[in-house]
Amino acid sequence: MRLLEERILADGTVLGETILKVDQFLTHQVDYRLMKEIGRVFADQYADLGITKVVTIEASGIAPAVYTAEALEVPMIFAKKHKNITMTEGILTAEVYSFTKQVTSTVSIAGGLLSKEDRVLIIDDFLANGQAAKGLIDIIHQAGAKAVGIGIVIEKSFQAGRQLLEDLGVEVTSLARIKHFDNGIVSFLEADA
Amino acid sequence: MRLLEERILADGTVLGETILKVDQFLTHQVDYRLMKEIGRVFADQYADLGITKVVTIEASGIAPAVYTAEALEVPMIFAKKHKNITMTEGILTAEVYSFTKQVTSTVSIAGGLLSKEDRVLIIDDFLANGQAAKGLIDIIHQAGAKAVGIGIVIEKSFQAGRQLLEDLGVEVTSLARIKHFDNGIVSFLEADA
Repeated sequence: MRLLEERILADGTVLGETILKVDQFLTHQVDYRLMKEIGRVFADQYADLGITKVVTIEASGIAPAVYTAEALEVPMIFAKKHKNITMTEGILTAEVYSFTKQVTSTVSIAGGLLSKEDRVLIIDDFLANGQAAKGLIDIIHQAGAKAVGIGIVIEKSFQAGRQLLEDLGVEVTSLARIKHFDNGIVSFLEADA
Repeated sequence: MRLLEERILADGTVLGETILKVDQFLTHQVDYRLMKEIGRVFADQYADLGITKVVTIEASGIAPAVYTAEALEVPMIFAKKHKNITMTEGILTAEVYSFTKQVTSTVSIAGGLLSKEDRVLIIDDFLANGQAAKGLIDIIHQAGAKAVGIGIVIEKSFQAGRQLLEDLGVEVTSLARIKHFDNGIVSFLEADA
């Protein structure tokens, strides 16, 4: 997605060897115009696949996910990273290991929100090692639903996540694919859309 | 907002004396149509007040906030509840006490995202004791910006938050105002919009 790549080059900041800071338009301040366009592109990719729900994980996935849901005219669910007093029963959970933080956390979705009939499109802001998306796929499978595809805003293609998800049989659509960071400059692979 | 009140009556669940569970359309699963309409109503209320930024707090505030930002054609910023490795400098913070959880947490916004010229509309999903919104006002003031108003999706009018925020000189617009829960039934006060 050319518009996204241009925005990353203009407003993204590389921190160290592996971190891209995009808090001007995605992970802290949010550019609704870009999110809306991202939602349209994801929806176009999965328009004919009978998607019934969009699932993401709090918090930075919510904006691109809700615009994808709007474009597909389906509900969006954001998985919780933290325990919540109003989640009382039938909670589906998965353990997610963060290589960056070196901690395991529990991601959850209320079981009643997904059914065997659901065909789910997962949306997330970043794909690095794929652990968060793998956790969401696990939860979707626990509900008996199908994970049809994964839409990623920014993929770090030098990390193992994409291969992991494809090995699980889920199609990955990344709008920006980062080959590497070279002295603070972002280098892209060809994106999926 | 009639549409919202009807949705609360149809899909909300009262838990105990003070908790309303709205995870079917707001705090877990998100109905983009309702969020879009909520965004339009907030934008109408503040259309003539020169709003330059919408600020919310992760995670349930993000969907109503991004649609409000879209309707006002301004950027949205979501404050972080947790420390983040990409937030490196100039971070504005406020301590927020949760009466429900009885813990104090730190809410933060990168200082570079707000300036003295900004006129900010705060959006949040719930108003109870007002501590989260008070923390956001504090951060906005630290940046030298003006907190013009606060748009709340669901106000628990039997708790002290609204008075606290009005005493700080910030106008509150609540789309649903809950008078009390009576044997699990929600009773409303007249809403602000």
